[in-house]
Amino acid sequence: MPSLHFPDRLARLQGVLSRKRIDALLVTQPANRRYLSGYNAEDHGIQESAGVLLVPRRGQPFLLTDSRFLLQAEEEATGFAVRLYQQGLMATLSRLLPELRVRRLGFESHYLLHATAGRLARVTDKLKVELVPGTDFVEPLRIVKNNDEIAKLRAAVLLNEQVFQKVYRTIRPGMTESAIALDLETAMREMGAAGPSFPTIVAFGTNAAKPHAIPGSRVLAAGETVLIDMGLVLDGYCADMTRTVMVGEPAPLFRERLRIVRRAQLAAIQTIRAGVTCRQVDLAARRVIREAGYGACFGHALGHGVGLEVHEEPRLSSRSRKKLRAGMVVTVEPGIYLPDWGGIRLENMVVVREEGCEVLNRDTTFLDR
Amino acid sequence: MPSLHFPDRLARLQGVLSRKRIDALLVTQPANRRYLSGYNAEDHGIQESAGVLLVPRRGQPFLLTDSRFLLQAEEEATGFAVRLYQQGLMATLSRLLPELRVRRLGFESHYLLHATAGRLARVTDKLKVELVPGTDFVEPLRIVKNNDEIAKLRAAVLLNEQVFQKVYRTIRPGMTESAIALDLETAMREMGAAGPSFPTIVAFGTNAAKPHAIPGSRVLAAGETVLIDMGLVLDGYCADMTRTVMVGEPAPLFRERLRIVRRAQLAAIQTIRAGVTCRQVDLAARRVIREAGYGACFGHALGHGVGLEVHEEPRLSSRSRKKLRAGMVVTVEPGIYLPDWGGIRLENMVVVREEGCEVLNRDTTFLDR
Repeated sequence: MPSLHFPDRLARLQGVLSRKRIDALLVTQPANRRYLSGYNAEDHGIQESAGVLLVPRRGQPFLLTDSRFLLQAEEEATGFAVRLYQQGLMATLSRLLPELRVRRLGFESHYLLHATAGRLARVTDKLKVELVPGTDFVEPLRIVKNNDEIAKLRAAVLLNEQVFQKVYRTIRPGMTESAIALDLETAMREMGAAGPSFPTIVAFGTNAAKPHAIPGSRVLAAGETVLIDMGLVLDGYCADMTRTVMVGEPAPLFRERLRIVRRAQLAAIQTIRAGVTCRQVDLAARRVIREAGYGACFGHALGHGVGLEVHEEPRLSSRSRKKLRAGMVVTVEPGIYLPDWGGIRLENMVVVREEGCEVLNRDTTFLDR
Repeated sequence: MPSLHFPDRLARLQGVLSRKRIDALLVTQPANRRYLSGYNAEDHGIQESAGVLLVPRRGQPFLLTDSRFLLQAEEEATGFAVRLYQQGLMATLSRLLPELRVRRLGFESHYLLHATAGRLARVTDKLKVELVPGTDFVEPLRIVKNNDEIAKLRAAVLLNEQVFQKVYRTIRPGMTESAIALDLETAMREMGAAGPSFPTIVAFGTNAAKPHAIPGSRVLAAGETVLIDMGLVLDGYCADMTRTVMVGEPAPLFRERLRIVRRAQLAAIQTIRAGVTCRQVDLAARRVIREAGYGACFGHALGHGVGLEVHEEPRLSSRSRKKLRAGMVVTVEPGIYLPDWGGIRLENMVVVREEGCEVLNRDTTFLDR
């Protein structure tokens, strides 16, 4: 009965609004919109929104959208009153804000265009409504996942692994990076995912030295490294996994570096539990890589939260002193990158628990070679 | 030698900046960034930008990005000095704006988040730089296409038709909307496109009554309408085409309505030439549909510009009194929609010429049944 979550989420948000003395919040960020309402429509970029929420501190919340989304909105956002904006969002707000007696209106500064905020300000100025920009009305509510969300993340992780396995078995010298990336993204959708959660990374040889390599026409040669960083969206929730493999028998240097990265990953996983800081986890992995002599070759943070978005809070970074809490879901993805040689990254997703953590991944491809 | 276009584009933009007395423009909108620089990187949403341009009124323009895009930026944006933002965009601007003696800085209000604009204002306040928001610095330059751009749009249209033909031949009763949409998007990429230019629409039967239907699990029955609205991106430029077909022999009512929509499309195409207003073109199609008794069944505008973006200026709407100019590229897409029956839409792309227009499409599937 997942729909039971929405009243709880709304109640928690309304608590936030009360504390900030905000009469209503305009929710424009798509993952926040989905989290609060259950409405799953996809936006085509920030300039073509599938709708916004207007959540008052008390009483009936609204989903404002246009006619092409009406059916889906009514089906999915069952706790919300759906209003169509025939003459645009601003005209609808001009009527709705006085109706709801809103004096202070919050909005999501990190997901509203400057031009749109300007139009909104002209509406609220006229109505003598005070605008309260913010960046953390809803996101803090999403950071700890409940059991239903963890079940969805687990399902996404396992499907992602099945997709990886299906395509991994077909990788042969002569294939291009972009062909493998296309095979992965096609398989995701054929096997039931909504699509990739981010553009799939497939990098051969020295290309793997770029942490965010873009798949190109490079052709795989025998004995080359293949780094695959892939994720999918299933039932709204994201998976994110990296494997680095070698076609054929792994070269000794590859095997040595792979083991270092894997040891770094395990060191981090052994550190994760509620109450530990993000920094401590990052440093546990970083220490292994540094002590193996590759300290300068691991330039990015160790991991990030995953949920309705593939990158969310918390960040497992050496600069973050935030404490992990039970129910957070994070990636653990150490790497070693050498421009003239290539790169190795291994990434799993884990759930933070009171007494440790639970690794969501089951796939062991090349993890312990 | 397409790279020769970039100095001309920059010069035209610098003319705009001079007229507005702006010392430099921060270009955040991805299509504008590509148009001015040739830099093709893809953003992962507005919150994960692949870089921004800083174009001074005179002298060397800059491309600001992060290390993962360095190689691509240097290869593609040959006329730009590439600067990496190690400590973030704002830190880089703090140094660069005084270096370039910028006193008035323009930015793209329609493609900068409110929160980012706030951070930018804190930087410019400190430097005593005046901020000038705008929404039409670069877009007006893009509205008329040159021959090289038209050649790219033609190639995109023809590839889109080949993809359509390949999948169209495989459509059989029992297939779902989403399976056909996936086949189309996979074929786009297999046949050389970067990907779809918008989420592919495949709608069966009554679903076709929704102009922006989302492909679902509905199964195709014999004798049902299939509406396919699809586009791809090739070499940065977008295609956009709609065909409405029937599996098997078309029913008489379908054939009758298809002919009305086709006549409306031809009436609009015969109206298009430089100097005619957008409104005149829209009304030429609308009149045919109204006189056939379906005036209330055509709720959207007739068409839109296409280029680096799939939806751009001009809008062929009954409210627009803007005049068409030679070199504009627009869609012509009349439709008839009846909630209990379904819908028919036909869409081609045309280039406005001094003495008429050139239809870019060659595909005639079901156009004249």
